[in-house]
Amino acid sequence: MSNGKRHFLDTFFYPKSVAVVGAARSPGTLNFQLLSNLVNLSFMGKIYPVNPNAEEILGLKSYPDLRSIEQEVDLAVIAVPASKTLDIVRDCVAKKVKCVTLVPGGFSEIGKQGKALQDEILALLRQHGIRAIGPNALTPVNSRNNLVISFHPVEKLPHGKLSFIFQSGLYEPRFGWLLSGLNLHISKLIDLGNKMDINEVDALEYLSQDPETKVIALHLESIAGDAKEFMQLLKRTTKEKPVIVLKSGRTPEGAEAASSHTGAIAKSSDAVVDAALKQAGAIRVQALDDFFDFAKIFEYLPPLKKNRIAIATGSGGEGVIATDLCLLNGFTIAQLSPETRDKLRSIFPPWDIPVNPLDAGVCYQFNWGTDANAVFLDALADDPNVDCAALATQIHAYTRADPHQFVKPYCDMVKNGKPVVTWVTDPRVGGKLVDQLEYNRIPVYTSGERAIRALSALYHYHAMKNI
Amino acid sequence: MSNGKRHFLDTFFYPKSVAVVGAARSPGTLNFQLLSNLVNLSFMGKIYPVNPNAEEILGLKSYPDLRSIEQEVDLAVIAVPASKTLDIVRDCVAKKVKCVTLVPGGFSEIGKQGKALQDEILALLRQHGIRAIGPNALTPVNSRNNLVISFHPVEKLPHGKLSFIFQSGLYEPRFGWLLSGLNLHISKLIDLGNKMDINEVDALEYLSQDPETKVIALHLESIAGDAKEFMQLLKRTTKEKPVIVLKSGRTPEGAEAASSHTGAIAKSSDAVVDAALKQAGAIRVQALDDFFDFAKIFEYLPPLKKNRIAIATGSGGEGVIATDLCLLNGFTIAQLSPETRDKLRSIFPPWDIPVNPLDAGVCYQFNWGTDANAVFLDALADDPNVDCAALATQIHAYTRADPHQFVKPYCDMVKNGKPVVTWVTDPRVGGKLVDQLEYNRIPVYTSGERAIRALSALYHYHAMKNI
Repeated sequence: MSNGKRHFLDTFFYPKSVAVVGAARSPGTLNFQLLSNLVNLSFMGKIYPVNPNAEEILGLKSYPDLRSIEQEVDLAVIAVPASKTLDIVRDCVAKKVKCVTLVPGGFSEIGKQGKALQDEILALLRQHGIRAIGPNALTPVNSRNNLVISFHPVEKLPHGKLSFIFQSGLYEPRFGWLLSGLNLHISKLIDLGNKMDINEVDALEYLSQDPETKVIALHLESIAGDAKEFMQLLKRTTKEKPVIVLKSGRTPEGAEAASSHTGAIAKSSDAVVDAALKQAGAIRVQALDDFFDFAKIFEYLPPLKKNRIAIATGSGGEGVIATDLCLLNGFTIAQLSPETRDKLRSIFPPWDIPVNPLDAGVCYQFNWGTDANAVFLDALADDPNVDCAALATQIHAYTRADPHQFVKPYCDMVKNGKPVVTWVTDPRVGGKLVDQLEYNRIPVYTSGERAIRALSALYHYHAMKNI
Repeated sequence: MSNGKRHFLDTFFYPKSVAVVGAARSPGTLNFQLLSNLVNLSFMGKIYPVNPNAEEILGLKSYPDLRSIEQEVDLAVIAVPASKTLDIVRDCVAKKVKCVTLVPGGFSEIGKQGKALQDEILALLRQHGIRAIGPNALTPVNSRNNLVISFHPVEKLPHGKLSFIFQSGLYEPRFGWLLSGLNLHISKLIDLGNKMDINEVDALEYLSQDPETKVIALHLESIAGDAKEFMQLLKRTTKEKPVIVLKSGRTPEGAEAASSHTGAIAKSSDAVVDAALKQAGAIRVQALDDFFDFAKIFEYLPPLKKNRIAIATGSGGEGVIATDLCLLNGFTIAQLSPETRDKLRSIFPPWDIPVNPLDAGVCYQFNWGTDANAVFLDALADDPNVDCAALATQIHAYTRADPHQFVKPYCDMVKNGKPVVTWVTDPRVGGKLVDQLEYNRIPVYTSGERAIRALSALYHYHAMKNI
């Protein structure tokens, strides 16, 4: 955070030094991975492995305990079994570490005994003014300084303006995929776990003020803080930044499941939460596909305030389906200008008339090798009747074209302030194409329905904000 | 068709000989592909290329015109421009071919002139009792005799009991993906195009009687035949076989788009169609993801008549979301039997209690290398309280296990009459695993929501049928 006043979470995201308590020596184990991510990604700070049985891990000096570290420790990541955690927290107090992340489970989520231990730890930390994330949390992540606390090997950490708040390790098994498969570009990620100390209000407040965060994706199982304060904060935040909210535990059985794994207790019925989220201007999603799909479109594309859409597909049949989906998702089908229709005639067979939705398949069959999408996009970029476009990308056109030339018309249209979504059905064949487009911030989905639903979220957020 | 009385569509699906009129010599062109698919897949019948400028194509004798073929022609596939089609149809009459597929567009879908030409062709064919599919249709496909009429290279044609009816070339650009990516196993595929002669009533009637077809997936843009007859036929069919219906052109704009590419005219409002489809017991979907997802689950899995579901995920957070989704999709969360809970204790850490939904991630962290899904599935197969399961498949467990051992518990549970769905988020990492599971008819989706929605369709169809 650069604007003078430091938020207390800054120490978590920008620690000058991190101690990994429980760092392991055996490659392949989770606690080895915790350390090796920091090393491999070149975390921009000091790293102190703590392990009573090691003198050196991954070329770093290892310490038998926290107290043996000569230098200051900003962040202690505690990754030992729950039963040993209290001792380590006592060491944190003695060492005067600035903040801690508690990784292990086995606390409030398992019942009375766990809750008692958690309370004892919290009391001790509070007494000494040490803030804590967790327990039952793998966090934080910050792409600015390559801080990554994760059990899974992270190969790269692409920098961007999308920040996540998770309540549970939901993202953990798919973290690599988020970064290298979905091509999301992350600023910060915070996993709250049992929210013993730091909760969703703190995290949202921090990200709402963070100049590095443009889009917030928030996963919640419960509201641990003051619900009214949370909703007010959310309302203020959504005026500046889109906030995508996945509030799970919607059903009584789901809420019970949430309680048994992070100790979360749902205080309100889902209908109440739903109404409050809507009023606060949040973009609510029901499951993970939309959560990540929407996060991507808000991260990638400029605002969309009007809804006249142009459609191109590889077959007329898919054009009909896409048209239905656009209408049902709040778009109107753009009436192409006479200039655009003239330009499109060059790629159409003489017996056919260029209309929106465009059947690019017909152009392709008629004029072998033509990239109908490129001609279409070039025309649309200038068409005053068109606000955005949804295109089924034809893989065969890509395989024949220079990648730069292929992607350029998509980028040109977006530069003209007109968001474009596209889809490639087969990720095995289209992988390179997807990466090429997404490298240039053109979002690619696996189907028209997902692309159009995401674009609709973009439109509705920005149209709503204007009211 | 084996049961005595032959349906007239049998000649299309089991022709003893196929003439490809317009077969091309240049590899890479669409009309070359049309022929090379038949050759490469070893169509079990005679193949006659017709091309006035070739003497031989792909090692086959080529004929200047249909009349020059000495032998009988059962099916003529006409793939020449619309303007030349009438001449070829005259040749068909002279040659007394039994039936024809008209591939080109440029007929009723482009307006008055095209409609007039189409009517002239239809009149001529009717006069001579020749039945026709199309125009504007790529079809038929039959995996029993390796008959494939397609512009795209088809590498393999896995045989199964799923049959498709399409109204447009919607499947064409993704045909290879349906077979090799989605791992669907097809019996027959018919693309109706403009439905000049043969329409959805004929196609559905044929497939409803076809012993090789167990599941029907039907894409429609219009009902060209008698709507009442169609709905009655549909109702009879769904009592025996699930019929998944994607009726597009739902919105006025979508219907207009349909009219401009297959000449289809929507006669009824979508609400009327929707009510009639529901009453006929069809499974209606709104777009392509559900269409193929549902087709897969009905093709792969045995009936599901009860709704007590068991859930296992790689993180507690995903378990909460899956629980919500199950409840919202008509399932109840199974109360595991005491025996099952005892069995599960072996993979759980001592401080945790095995509950449904199962957090397999906890088991995995506690007991490195355990395949929690396998232990879970083995227990569930015997649990009288459990009807089905939804499992997030852990890729790391797969990479450590013998593939056969990994897949076996999934198959055992299904053999016990309990359908299992699973999901693997990252297709790049999980590709081999997906293929291994799907080779054994365990359906794999890319997310929990898609897996659970598909399982819900299976349950609702079979539960409804029992009423």
